[in-house]
Amino acid sequence: MKIIRSVAEMQKETLMHKENKRSIGFAPTMGYFHKGHLQLIEEAKKENDIVAVSIFVNPLQFGENEDFGRYPRDEKRDIQLAESYGVDLLFIPTVEEMYPTKPQLNMVMVDRVDVLCGKSRPGHFDGVVTVLAKLFHIVQPNRAYFGLKDAQQIAVVDVLIQQYNFPIELIRVPTAREDNGLAMSSRNVYLTEQERAEAPAIIHALQEAKSLMENEERHPAVIVEKVRALLQQHTSAKIDYVELLSYPELKTIEQINQQVIVAVAVQFEKARLIDNIIYHP
Amino acid sequence: MKIIRSVAEMQKETLMHKENKRSIGFAPTMGYFHKGHLQLIEEAKKENDIVAVSIFVNPLQFGENEDFGRYPRDEKRDIQLAESYGVDLLFIPTVEEMYPTKPQLNMVMVDRVDVLCGKSRPGHFDGVVTVLAKLFHIVQPNRAYFGLKDAQQIAVVDVLIQQYNFPIELIRVPTAREDNGLAMSSRNVYLTEQERAEAPAIIHALQEAKSLMENEERHPAVIVEKVRALLQQHTSAKIDYVELLSYPELKTIEQINQQVIVAVAVQFEKARLIDNIIYHP
Repeated sequence: MKIIRSVAEMQKETLMHKENKRSIGFAPTMGYFHKGHLQLIEEAKKENDIVAVSIFVNPLQFGENEDFGRYPRDEKRDIQLAESYGVDLLFIPTVEEMYPTKPQLNMVMVDRVDVLCGKSRPGHFDGVVTVLAKLFHIVQPNRAYFGLKDAQQIAVVDVLIQQYNFPIELIRVPTAREDNGLAMSSRNVYLTEQERAEAPAIIHALQEAKSLMENEERHPAVIVEKVRALLQQHTSAKIDYVELLSYPELKTIEQINQQVIVAVAVQFEKARLIDNIIYHP
Repeated sequence: MKIIRSVAEMQKETLMHKENKRSIGFAPTMGYFHKGHLQLIEEAKKENDIVAVSIFVNPLQFGENEDFGRYPRDEKRDIQLAESYGVDLLFIPTVEEMYPTKPQLNMVMVDRVDVLCGKSRPGHFDGVVTVLAKLFHIVQPNRAYFGLKDAQQIAVVDVLIQQYNFPIELIRVPTAREDNGLAMSSRNVYLTEQERAEAPAIIHALQEAKSLMENEERHPAVIVEKVRALLQQHTSAKIDYVELLSYPELKTIEQINQQVIVAVAVQFEKARLIDNIIYHP
């Protein structure tokens, strides 16, 4: 495994692989690896000659009062894990390497971001598409791998790739979960023991939503209220949002008659957790 | 020469050439070819295995009251000329092919656009970078060729390529001129006979500016006033702007002690013409 910290060196390396007709699978990450990252890498290994992974905690996608400074980092452990997972190219740039000058050309999402995390994290997805456009040019992937836990991120990356004609296939990888159903997240380390015991209530509430839809419930409000009630009943977390929207368009709907997402964000004392299910009636 | 009208087909073609290690030189144009376009293509032929040219009058870079509808077009003649110039791939997409959905993700220039044409054409360069980002992904060029007549466009494309890490070399090609010095432009066809006789006064005024700087004049205001006076004296055109700025940063300066641009835009009855000189003291 090559560990690369310079943009120029990474780009040279990936262009060389492309010239030699080797396909590149790419998983962009913020590090602090867990099983979810491993699954992205496993999928990438199946379908590509070269697996590239980036570790970059992107300041542009964090709001002023968010956890950029204390986002969990453990580079040494991540390097060991990446090596053991069979990663070929591990790209770990600094903030200065990625953003050497102040911004002169911004990317601004004007759709799919006025809901869910986009509403509570203004500018977040602008930061996401900006760093991904850069990383896609640096890494030159044939396929890019994203976890469905960040379903809105996938909907946004879909826009980036389609609208700007990136020659990249977007691969959606199912959310990795702990045995009790809790969605894997680097932020789970910030849960107290009590919160960790409560957190599986999130997926249980979403499963109840799915079960209602399977039983022909077609009113979004009924589903949303049920999920809210279950979260309030079983966790101490503050509900940031519970929303049911069309997917991947992320529009509010009157009736459930197309593919939808039921998505949740809750704020525990030190960790904001998200989860979702996607359902097609 | 292949004439291609579909994004998917063009991208398939260019990716195939890249896989076969053929370098691609790309000149994005709005068609209605003149000697300036020919020079871009000649430069591209010298340095690349494959020369790709696009013809696309991009609605996104025209303001509401601008000349999108009546921008000169002559596809049949352009195809013949491209063939005779030795172009390999001629990409002629429709507006619907380039913009099949309404915009969901915008690119917004926040530097180098509050001056010159950016000031009088708000949103123009956002449209330019948006279409170029798409074309770069579709055409996959190693080198992209732009004429220095649109010096601000080159400064903006420089930002696009650098800030977003496109693996593309930006090639600046000197402005092509008629024998009398008038900068070649597709819009020159809209000049009346009288205006066509006056128009060389633009380059003469810019040459006078250069001559003043060569004679140690270091005050921008003096140069700008001289150019204005010459334009007013020798043409019937309305002056849109005369500006002297650092180049490529496009900042106003107090003293001429770095590379600068002296740039002019004038409005004749039906044609808005631009020209510039770049000077390093």
